This record gives sequence, C-alpha cells and structure tokens, in this order.
Amino acid sequence: MDPLKIIKVGGNIIDNPEALDRFLEQFAKVQGPKILVHGGGKLATKLAEDMQVPVNMIEGRRITDAVTLDIITMIYAGKINKNIVAKLQANHCNAIGFTGADGNVICSVKRPVKTIDYGFVGDIVKVNPEVPDVLLQNGVTPVFCAITHDNNGQLLNTNADTIASALAVGLSKYYATELIYVFEKNGVLMSVDDEDSVIENINTESYEKLIKDGVIADGMLPKLTNCFDALKAGVSKVIIGNASVISNKNQKYTTLKL
Amino acid sequence: MDPLKIIKVGGNIIDNPEALDRFLEQFAKVQGPKILVHGGGKLATKLAEDMQVPVNMIEGRRITDAVTLDIITMIYAGKINKNIVAKLQANHCNAIGFTGADGNVICSVKRPVKTIDYGFVGDIVKVNPEVPDVLLQNGVTPVFCAITHDNNGQLLNTNADTIASALAVGLSKYYATELIYVFEKNGVLMSVDDEDSVIENINTESYEKLIKDGVIADGMLPKLTNCFDALKAGVSKVIIGNASVISNKNQKYTTLKL
Repeated sequence: MDPLKIIKVGGNIIDNPEALDRFLEQFAKVQGPKILVHGGGKLATKLAEDMQVPVNMIEGRRITDAVTLDIITMIYAGKINKNIVAKLQANHCNAIGFTGADGNVICSVKRPVKTIDYGFVGDIVKVNPEVPDVLLQNGVTPVFCAITHDNNGQLLNTNADTIASALAVGLSKYYATELIYVFEKNGVLMSVDDEDSVIENINTESYEKLIKDGVIADGMLPKLTNCFDALKAGVSKVIIGNASVISNKNQKYTTLKL
Repeated sequence: MDPLKIIKVGGNIIDNPEALDRFLEQFAKVQGPKILVHGGGKLATKLAEDMQVPVNMIEGRRITDAVTLDIITMIYAGKINKNIVAKLQANHCNAIGFTGADGNVICSVKRPVKTIDYGFVGDIVKVNPEVPDVLLQNGVTPVFCAITHDNNGQLLNTNADTIASALAVGLSKYYATELIYVFEKNGVLMSVDDEDSVIENINTESYEKLIKDGVIADGMLPKLTNCFDALKAGVSKVIIGNASVISNKNQKYTTLKL
C-alpha cells in the first residue's frame, strides 16, 4: 500500500494567491492517499481590522477571545478552507474540508489558565482517524484547517503543525504515514542565512549532536522535537522543505528518521 | 432499510441561538440516515455592516459580488456550519460540514446574465451523491450550507431549499428519500393567518385544485412546484412544517405525495 502523505502548508503560501495556486496544482498531482493541513496566514488579522476588532496580545501572544474565535472560524474554515477545496476540485483532486469537529476527528481541551489565559485555544487530546480513513479509502482527500473542538460544542483554535503531527500519528494505525512540512526555507539549515546549507538527513543521534553544537536552537528546536515525538509515536518519516518537496524536484530538503 | 431524511432548516431558527440549540438536540435524536441543510439567516448582513460593505440590491434582490461571496462563505461555511457541527457532536451526532465543493457533491453554473447580473450565484447542474452515501453508510451525518461550486475553482451562492431538493433527488438512487422543510409556519395553510388551518395532505390532484381556488399563491407556489418536481424525480415524500416535525410530536404538518 502507498504511504499516506500528510502535508502541512504554512501561512506564507496561503497569503500569496499565485504561490497558493501553484502549490495546489502540485498537491493535486501527488500520488497515493494524502491529507492537506493549512495554516491561517494574515487574513484573520485583516478581517479583524476591517471589523475594527482590537487584537489582544499578552506577552507577545495573540489571545483567542470569543470574537477572535469567530474571525478565525470564518477565515480558516470558511474563506481559506473552502477556496482551497474548490481549487483542488478544479485540479481534479476530490477534496473535502475539515475542522477537527467534522467527523469528530480531533478532540481538544481548552488550554488551562496558568499565568496566561489564551482564551479559546485547544490542546489536542484525541484523534479519531475513522472518518478520514474511510474517505481516503474512497479516493477523497481531507483538507484540515487549524480548528478543533472539545466535544461539548466549543470550537478551539489549534496550532496547524500540531494538527498535522496528531493526524499523522493517529493514522499510523492504518497507514505508513509521512509527515511533510512545507515552509519558507529549503529545509533545516546548518547556517540559518545560507539556503544551500540544507541538512539532508537527521536521525536521533545526529539530532542530539546538532543541538549540542548549537546548530538547532530557537524556533526550530520545539518544532523538531515535535517531529521526533511523532516518529517515536509511529510516523515513518518527516520531511521539511520548501514547496518543491511535494513535486519531487531535484531540490534538497531535510528528512527526519529515528 | 430506513429512509434517508433530508432536513432543511431556515434562517428564522439559525438567527435564534436558543431555538437552534433546541432544534439541533432534536435533530441529533432523529433515527436513521439523515442530512441537514441550513440557510444563512441574518448573520451575513450583520458581518457586511461590521465590515462596512454596502449591500447591493437590484429590483429587490441581493447581488452576490466578490466581497459578498467572501462574506457568505465565511458566515455560511465557517461560522454557522462549523458551530452547528460542533453542537451536533456535543449531542452525539457525528456530523461533518459540507459545501457543494466538498466531495464535489453539488456542481453549479454561474447564473447567466439576462436582465439582472446576480453575480456569484449558482444554478445546480449535477449532484454526485457518492461521498455523502459513503459517509451515511458509516453513520456520519452530512451538514450542508448554501454554497456550491462550478468545478473551475469558483464557489457560488445557491438557494438552500434547492440544495436540499437536489440532494434528495440525487440520493434517491440509493435510498428512499424524505425531504423535510422546517420553517416558521405549521405547514401549508388553508388560511394564511390561521396556524390551525394546516392542509395535512396534498397530492398532484388536490394541488391543482388548491392553485385553482387561489389557496396556494405568491411565495408558496414556486416552493411547492419545486417539491412536486422533486417527487416526480424520485423523492418519496415531502414534509413541510415547524421545528416539531422532526421530533414526531402530535403536531399537524403538511405531507406532499404524488
């Protein structure tokens, strides 16, 4: 059986209509079962401005109050998700849009208040892979936005990277799953300013060394730790690269394996 | 096999959070395969006001320009549809939200311009019932909002009554389908101001007589003509009544059969 590819695309592509169109054309051509997970980009901030809703930041983090959750739901699950689905259909990819509430696929708990009340933000507690599995078996491609639910009727804003990783782990019961993060750089870089310095392969051992040597730090550290957690939980491999990774161009990218 | 119930709920319930909660509780309890189709209510107009987008009316009809289509997509497919799905999940009904683009279920053409350019409004040309069918077979309940697509990447605003009817006809290949319109009155009334004057049964013959006698006119005439068209195209029966029709209370309602 073909591996299942779970491909997460970030806000930088969502915010650029031409780049998004090109990406979706390439995504539609990816062979075998696949799932798309997309971030939100800047459209939610734009709508908040148009509605004159103030952005509520605490310690540099955006707080999801009730109005902000509405905005996120409208933008992520409405405008972005449904336009992606329609464009994939135009590219002959039979897509279907999802939040974690649809099919009860991703259940979360509202993040407990410690020092900061993040509002309607969800931490994933359970993935029910049955509905995506039955759709994949029928040649349909689920497209997830970054929203989950708490099983009590509440939608929750949830990190898209984490959704992709949780889906890959949850579906590893049924498929060999590959988790592919498409972002603005060519991969994990030895030298952050040199796009040619892609580290092509990282395993548990070399990962420890890269951390010790200070190559992996800051934002990349929690991201890669999450990737290794996904590998330990059953995901076959994780790929990190720019949009060309999905079209098998002769472009370098980073592959993570245990 | 149980008949498939396709239940369309109108804007008057969508606009009233308590009435919507009660309705969804009752809907969750409906036995057998079922599909919910919901209208939009007044939330789209409210968002247009918040965004200071002018409403564009020609001859009393709202025109769906590009900005209005975005608003409709955000409200219908985002805010309303996803909150309904989350609430149905809380009521132990495994719901999944749909536009006609999802699963390529409902294909439309942009309404041709004759005297009025309605903008991004779609007239349904094809229903592909395969994806809803596979979900129904797996105990999942599709929830449709009033948006379709043209297979070329364009979402289109489409009448919710028509979507319900097209789905009922499309799925009548696989199921005995019952089309249930939930609206603000108790049913088709002999006397428009008397809620006790429900006409409980209408068939082709009595329908002709009711038109001749002037009992059915104005807005009800095209609605009922569409219902009889659905019956002729394979739907088993059409029920028209208030929200209590789905909970089998001893309330009168109207049943249409050929």
